[in-house]
Amino acid sequence: MHFHHHGYVSGDPRIQAVAGVGIDRPEVLPDEVDVLIVGSGPAGMLAAAQLSQFPDITTRLVERRSGRLAIGQADGIQARSVETFQAFGFAERITAEAYRITEMAFWKPDPADPARIIRTARPLDDPAGVSEFPHLIVNQARVLDYFAEVMAHSPTRMKPDYGLEFAGLEVSDGEEYPVKVTLTHSSGPLEGTQRFVRAKYVIGADGARSQVRTAIGCTLAGDAANHAWGVMDVLATTDFPDIRLKCAIQSGAGGSILLIPREGGHLFRMYVDLGDVDTHTTGGIRSTTIEEIIEKANAILHPYTLNVRNVAWHSVYEVGHRLTDRFDDVRPEELGSRTPRVFITGDACHTHSAKAGQGMNVSMQDGFNIAWKLGHVLEGRSPESLLSTYSAERQVVAKNLIDFDRQWSSLMARKPDEFEDPTELENFYTSTMEFPAGFMTEYTPSLIVGEATHQELATGFPIGKRFKSAPVVRVCDTNPLQLGHQATADGRWRIYVFADEALPGPQSKAGIFADWLESSPDSPLAVTPGDADQDAWFDVKVIYQQDHQSLDIGAVPAVFKPTVGPFKLDYLEKVFGVDPSQDIYELRGLDRGGVVVVVRPDQYVAHVLPLTGTAELAAFFAGMQTGRRPEAAGGARVKG
Amino acid sequence: MHFHHHGYVSGDPRIQAVAGVGIDRPEVLPDEVDVLIVGSGPAGMLAAAQLSQFPDITTRLVERRSGRLAIGQADGIQARSVETFQAFGFAERITAEAYRITEMAFWKPDPADPARIIRTARPLDDPAGVSEFPHLIVNQARVLDYFAEVMAHSPTRMKPDYGLEFAGLEVSDGEEYPVKVTLTHSSGPLEGTQRFVRAKYVIGADGARSQVRTAIGCTLAGDAANHAWGVMDVLATTDFPDIRLKCAIQSGAGGSILLIPREGGHLFRMYVDLGDVDTHTTGGIRSTTIEEIIEKANAILHPYTLNVRNVAWHSVYEVGHRLTDRFDDVRPEELGSRTPRVFITGDACHTHSAKAGQGMNVSMQDGFNIAWKLGHVLEGRSPESLLSTYSAERQVVAKNLIDFDRQWSSLMARKPDEFEDPTELENFYTSTMEFPAGFMTEYTPSLIVGEATHQELATGFPIGKRFKSAPVVRVCDTNPLQLGHQATADGRWRIYVFADEALPGPQSKAGIFADWLESSPDSPLAVTPGDADQDAWFDVKVIYQQDHQSLDIGAVPAVFKPTVGPFKLDYLEKVFGVDPSQDIYELRGLDRGGVVVVVRPDQYVAHVLPLTGTAELAAFFAGMQTGRRPEAAGGARVKG
Repeated sequence: MHFHHHGYVSGDPRIQAVAGVGIDRPEVLPDEVDVLIVGSGPAGMLAAAQLSQFPDITTRLVERRSGRLAIGQADGIQARSVETFQAFGFAERITAEAYRITEMAFWKPDPADPARIIRTARPLDDPAGVSEFPHLIVNQARVLDYFAEVMAHSPTRMKPDYGLEFAGLEVSDGEEYPVKVTLTHSSGPLEGTQRFVRAKYVIGADGARSQVRTAIGCTLAGDAANHAWGVMDVLATTDFPDIRLKCAIQSGAGGSILLIPREGGHLFRMYVDLGDVDTHTTGGIRSTTIEEIIEKANAILHPYTLNVRNVAWHSVYEVGHRLTDRFDDVRPEELGSRTPRVFITGDACHTHSAKAGQGMNVSMQDGFNIAWKLGHVLEGRSPESLLSTYSAERQVVAKNLIDFDRQWSSLMARKPDEFEDPTELENFYTSTMEFPAGFMTEYTPSLIVGEATHQELATGFPIGKRFKSAPVVRVCDTNPLQLGHQATADGRWRIYVFADEALPGPQSKAGIFADWLESSPDSPLAVTPGDADQDAWFDVKVIYQQDHQSLDIGAVPAVFKPTVGPFKLDYLEKVFGVDPSQDIYELRGLDRGGVVVVVRPDQYVAHVLPLTGTAELAAFFAGMQTGRRPEAAGGARVKG
Repeated sequence: MHFHHHGYVSGDPRIQAVAGVGIDRPEVLPDEVDVLIVGSGPAGMLAAAQLSQFPDITTRLVERRSGRLAIGQADGIQARSVETFQAFGFAERITAEAYRITEMAFWKPDPADPARIIRTARPLDDPAGVSEFPHLIVNQARVLDYFAEVMAHSPTRMKPDYGLEFAGLEVSDGEEYPVKVTLTHSSGPLEGTQRFVRAKYVIGADGARSQVRTAIGCTLAGDAANHAWGVMDVLATTDFPDIRLKCAIQSGAGGSILLIPREGGHLFRMYVDLGDVDTHTTGGIRSTTIEEIIEKANAILHPYTLNVRNVAWHSVYEVGHRLTDRFDDVRPEELGSRTPRVFITGDACHTHSAKAGQGMNVSMQDGFNIAWKLGHVLEGRSPESLLSTYSAERQVVAKNLIDFDRQWSSLMARKPDEFEDPTELENFYTSTMEFPAGFMTEYTPSLIVGEATHQELATGFPIGKRFKSAPVVRVCDTNPLQLGHQATADGRWRIYVFADEALPGPQSKAGIFADWLESSPDSPLAVTPGDADQDAWFDVKVIYQQDHQSLDIGAVPAVFKPTVGPFKLDYLEKVFGVDPSQDIYELRGLDRGGVVVVVRPDQYVAHVLPLTGTAELAAFFAGMQTGRRPEAAGGARVKG
């Protein structure tokens, strides 16, 4: 954690100094905002938490509820989401209060007596060790609480504006605030009255029945619901031995249960199969009572019994799989002629079953993807064309999700005797683990994703996939650390310089690259404002091939030890050696001749280049950087 | 984390349900309290945080400052303290914001040019792996903040009463509230006026100039100050390469520096040797300016230079070593005839140098030791004789601390040419690491520490030393965990049952022991109130020798799966298997025939007994349990 560099901080260092629009932030929603977010679900709250880090951007979030969510429906937190929480600073805290999945059990009819279920498999949840982060179950309401805390502690002191419902919008290109939004007060003394706000950009994070989606003319397309599930969060006693394990249970009598243990040691969720939905009788299934769900669960669990003592929440839902063809307001015929002003995220774009535990996770990555891009465009770092990459990148991810969930849902709904291979269900679960863990997203080349020309220099950092952390040792204080965990969700691009075999010094390949990075007018760093810290826009880190005791921090080039804060202090925490017992060069297939790995603010690898690839690096960033400071174009930056 | 068992908890599960005296807690200090703590330093705040967990005990803490401490002086956090923070729920958070010591560097005059210093050694801070917890540096003010949060989230919703200074006390034995305390309002509208409070017990945590100590007739005895140090917390630039490492620096020119990097990446503390104090010129050294301290530091660091940019805090202090002969108000001639009513803790009992980073740590353990004992006596669980063990146990620890610090301080003050062996300083540091890490405390047999008759059954859990955690796997949810980290600072005794080789079942030795524990009127559990959860007073855990997949939780005896909460739910999280790759039986030298390890609420091992040692266990607890419920004495407890 980096603090004290602006002077002694006495209190919680997680509470950032108030700055920009956070100073005298108006309590009441202003008439003009930079970004208006509609909806305080996972996508909206993550986007708000990310944008709250930009001190000069006015972001407001409206939510029709009158306050905080009390009981949410989503609860699955994949490892990629915990990795994201780490960047926002609350992974450890939410992990401490969550249920952690380490194994999953499969139960099937006993061949000797199909009326009874028996455990047939108990695989590890992450046998390949795809991530150092855990797979968690925790109520969505707590995820939102943590993002609310991130906002509250940000320089902009952001908080949601509750009691305001989206009613419509109109985009008038060419104006400074081109999106005119109509809101309705949904609670409080002004309930029922309208409110108008002008925004530069709007993010619709308003769920499956999104009105923002409707306003921009998008529609959800896909298959209709055809299978119904009763879902309940309950406290119970039982003799079922795996009540605290995630279980897929298939009964001989017909029907299945997906059991999801929940946080706290007692609560669990059951998805209980209610059978196929006849379009004429949908109403009937929808009115299934909690007593009927419990009775059905007991029938499936036989010979075990479930004695429900308390019901926290229950519902009946039908599985459908639907998707929009675009995630922004640029219609196909407008592509190339204008850039988007309105975006939709999460359930507004993609709806599917809850049982693969994907919805909240994919939604959050939608929010992560769009938020930093809006930040960079609004701050003038990047051109508006950057915003077109959002729909292009996320629509594909949603399509893959829908396909995956359709397979998983239909497997879960299938009767035991319909499987050709009795281990098909667990084999599907274990063989596809990387997808539901959230690590199969792989963005294709674009303005912000390079071509894989030099991928062989860093085989463990595939371009377009998220940067997978590995252990290193920080030189200045000899602390063993995870390199990736040093990246926070601060909106910065990251450049990891993996040095060649030479020790630190100006004549090494890494030293020559460092000199270019610091002083060339073509360096991406050259556009960093002169009054900002050297590392304000780019977080540049160096990793040497030697162990930390062999490295002389005095010989490390200055660009890796930027000057920060009003006292012009040297920041030494960006210089690393390898952990010889887990050498990052070996673990990630890094070329011993050195390699540069460029990582986006949302943690995806944007490029892999050789240390001599300065022209390619300059060209890559030239496409997404808006202008350069005149004094920088003429030569080296003046150092603080 | 255990929650939801009283019904669904929507918000932060760390915030406990308000109960007992927390309901309608008066803002203003009442006239009568159970425990009055004087002083909000580490000892007082830990004691308050512990006592705040007892819902029916009114504990108040008075502090003469008008509010929260802004800049504290102590900053060293030994591993034992982080272990303690873990039990209070904030180890991970304070670690995330602290500086972590992993190596230490020693600098000495260059033999070739004694005017220059060179690095001569760089040992690991904890080469023996004495603890899984880190050694940290973080400002005392933040430690106090976290304890304040624990109190605020406790059932009693406790918070300090600021602006009240201790003025005196009088003990009148025989009354219900025998301690009459006089306080003075030190700030606010009532400033200067007096306030009287009656308390059952008083804890004096009011520092080196303790007035509580004076009031009970204790005096500090020991050697006078004879060496002075300038200490400064500063932000600076420097070419000294180890500025972010803990360093002991001895110069040839004379004088030495102890460098302690601080949290946040930039701040550091330097203790700069100002030389021996002549009793006639003490005043002179005490008025050393910050400029003079910086100048002296630069002279010692030669050829490196220090350019101080900002001074957060500085002071000059002289080293003395002083100790009181007792930690409570029972004078030697009263021993055995009365039990104590007033206790002193921390700096009120022991003062010494700051440089071994011990003061805050030992003080907190003073607070931990007395607080649970007061809780148990006030709740009627234990007789007042329990309170006499406080002074007996902690005075010895303080004596050892003074002896250790005297050695370390004099070594640090010695000139390089005065060492017979040039590696003496670093050898002392590394060879004694377990002491400053906080793990050498070993209480001797008493009312609450058993004789080591069966120590050979658990050689890795020495009786009288703190329970050292080891990995296990929880059966119900297959989570790999640290056994010791499942213990929270909730005031409960813990009984760890390490099973014999048999699988779970009633006929095994562990099963027979479990039956006795649950149903015998001689069992320590028999005194648990009938309306409380089965595990309200004793947290009983079982660890089997098999891996978790081999264990049938259904066959585990009921005492290890207590019924909890209004819904009478089974709590399954107390049953563990071994981690075969790190078998706790091997790691802790546990007898394969099974063993019972009894652990105190402050985490110290109280007893080690065989599974057949029920009579010994009953006898051990009989001495410290006040009465038994009549219905329990007649037979088995009624189960909920």
